[in-house]
Amino acid sequence: MIYLDNAASTQIHDDVFESMIPYMREQYGNPSSIHRRGRYARKAVELARKQIASLVNANSSEILLTSGGTESNNMALFGATINSPHSHIITSSIEHDAILEPCRILEDAGFDVTYLPVDRFGTVDISKLESSISEKTKLVSIMYANNEVGTIEPIFEIAKICREKNILFHSDAVQAVGKISLDVKKIPIDMLSISSHKLNGPKGVGALYIRKGTLLSPVIYGGGQERGLRSGTENVAGIVGFGKACDIARETIHHNLQNMKNLRDYMVTKITSEIPHTSLNGHPENRLPNNAHMTFLGVNGEDLIIKLDEYDIHASTGSACSVHTQKASHVLKSMGFSHEQITGSLRLTLGIFNDMKQVDEVVCVLKKVVAELRAVSPFREKYSFAENA
Amino acid sequence: MIYLDNAASTQIHDDVFESMIPYMREQYGNPSSIHRRGRYARKAVELARKQIASLVNANSSEILLTSGGTESNNMALFGATINSPHSHIITSSIEHDAILEPCRILEDAGFDVTYLPVDRFGTVDISKLESSISEKTKLVSIMYANNEVGTIEPIFEIAKICREKNILFHSDAVQAVGKISLDVKKIPIDMLSISSHKLNGPKGVGALYIRKGTLLSPVIYGGGQERGLRSGTENVAGIVGFGKACDIARETIHHNLQNMKNLRDYMVTKITSEIPHTSLNGHPENRLPNNAHMTFLGVNGEDLIIKLDEYDIHASTGSACSVHTQKASHVLKSMGFSHEQITGSLRLTLGIFNDMKQVDEVVCVLKKVVAELRAVSPFREKYSFAENA
Repeated sequence: MIYLDNAASTQIHDDVFESMIPYMREQYGNPSSIHRRGRYARKAVELARKQIASLVNANSSEILLTSGGTESNNMALFGATINSPHSHIITSSIEHDAILEPCRILEDAGFDVTYLPVDRFGTVDISKLESSISEKTKLVSIMYANNEVGTIEPIFEIAKICREKNILFHSDAVQAVGKISLDVKKIPIDMLSISSHKLNGPKGVGALYIRKGTLLSPVIYGGGQERGLRSGTENVAGIVGFGKACDIARETIHHNLQNMKNLRDYMVTKITSEIPHTSLNGHPENRLPNNAHMTFLGVNGEDLIIKLDEYDIHASTGSACSVHTQKASHVLKSMGFSHEQITGSLRLTLGIFNDMKQVDEVVCVLKKVVAELRAVSPFREKYSFAENA
Repeated sequence: MIYLDNAASTQIHDDVFESMIPYMREQYGNPSSIHRRGRYARKAVELARKQIASLVNANSSEILLTSGGTESNNMALFGATINSPHSHIITSSIEHDAILEPCRILEDAGFDVTYLPVDRFGTVDISKLESSISEKTKLVSIMYANNEVGTIEPIFEIAKICREKNILFHSDAVQAVGKISLDVKKIPIDMLSISSHKLNGPKGVGALYIRKGTLLSPVIYGGGQERGLRSGTENVAGIVGFGKACDIARETIHHNLQNMKNLRDYMVTKITSEIPHTSLNGHPENRLPNNAHMTFLGVNGEDLIIKLDEYDIHASTGSACSVHTQKASHVLKSMGFSHEQITGSLRLTLGIFNDMKQVDEVVCVLKKVVAELRAVSPFREKYSFAENA
């Protein structure tokens, strides 16, 4: 099995799993209980909060625990705007649906939302951001790195502009945290969404970094956990695992970043040199170290995934979450891709457990299956595939 | 260690833990991914959905997966009313904060909320329910069984009244599901909240039963998981464990119910006969089989918990979730309890792993620590504790 869908979800690290076991067995107390079992659970949650905070250099009081990245994004968008009806929100046209859908709901509720365009690399247009800001602008939400093509956005510049204009700035950083270094003390960012299962932690846990002094309204109400911002019994084992995953990521990030980048570059070079009519999408330099989003002209990406799956190689076309809607990627459309380029694309996202041997095998299989698919492609003559492939 | 706080959280069943392991190790695919790893995860989620549905005799398409009971309750209240502004909601004065807090938010948003009173046993006043219903009533939400005193509400009668008047009926059943038999085909209930960690499953997972045809709006928006009603990558391992816990509960419910009831009755009889000035609160018959909520006059419940904790016996005064607010129990207040009765109360909630030997030890320790506390109680002379205790 070769797993190259690490942007969709990642393998839980062995040490993460080990760290969770006590909280799935003997330490089952409710963190709100005042007896010993409760206090153990509370202590574990607070240690994890510290570990999560450390990964982005935040204070642990600035970390709100949620059920995942989607909830964090909803919390940031709804929580920051609910008390400012009819205000203005700026986001980008290539955000994840967990940002775009709440924005559509806010539009229906009378908010004005600007969707910033991107260039052909998927980089948000900063001059458009500046010209879009008005007196009514309450919140800017731009993703740290795109989940499909891997482009890293100019977050520092965006954050600076927002800070100067006194506008809240949120970033969906679920693809970036744990893969590239990120320091909230160096970037004037107000809120940051983090997901556990994107960084070798368990599913069902996430966090929202909320800079001290940033006022948010709750989205889920009840027993008053998470300082009243997110009620519900804490997912103790999940939170412990998330904390451990952050701890491991923090310790290994520089090593992993370089490793994944080398492996990715090796894979991309091999694919583009050995398979004709292929290209890398997204920004050539400002991109996540583990992302290789590529177009194979004349091939349907979904057919490619199914063929690869037969060889136990797991990849995707784009966002796993967009499967429900079966739409063509809004990200690639925004980048000005043609229909042919969009349908011919494949996302290969590396993780910390991939190695060069796997990459060699993937390229070998890709060569074979791309040739097979091209041999029966309606674009066969256009690219003279019969000869080249 | 003797754990008698099973209403706050329960020990994960060994078989539940075992069932989760594959999904925390090799089966880490995102259920939305179309490759093999994704399909395995999807299959596991759908099997769990069936197991959860079976426990309450629902169809699996009627089970919405959430991050827990609190989210389920929020979803039911906000989701059912958001498109009916300024309508009327009926609930009870003894609900969990996960119902009362959303109700307060809805009141702020212009909804009219009626909080039904209860009698001294904590039973909701049905005639008041009937007289409160108006043309504007959109939703009734009454808990299946109270989390503090264990009283089971007249759910069938309430459901029948709501059905006749064509009003949506939701019940927070997190304390009841898995402990008493519950069949949504026999009760005309529209929505039911369920929590995994209350029935020996993992924390961080829950469900909302939504009867086919019931229209709800989402609360969390994004990738469109859970038929667009609850976006976010599914907590696969947690859901699998929840499913297994429901399966075990379904198979053992009759046996466990009788066992817990016998054990509870034995404990209550022993306490009331061996320790003077003690009484059982809540309904004498219509109560959860595992709940013994008792008052020890002249003793402070929190002092009692701390003393018991020294003997490694874990109990609580009431709702674990109310610890954050440190208020006197709104449930006991609604039942007409005096301040002295409220502060002198202790909740002992049994689980499937308790036995008679443990109960004997608890009663023995209780006798000792209650006497110690009463010896220094300000109420000492009122009850002549020196002699009796």
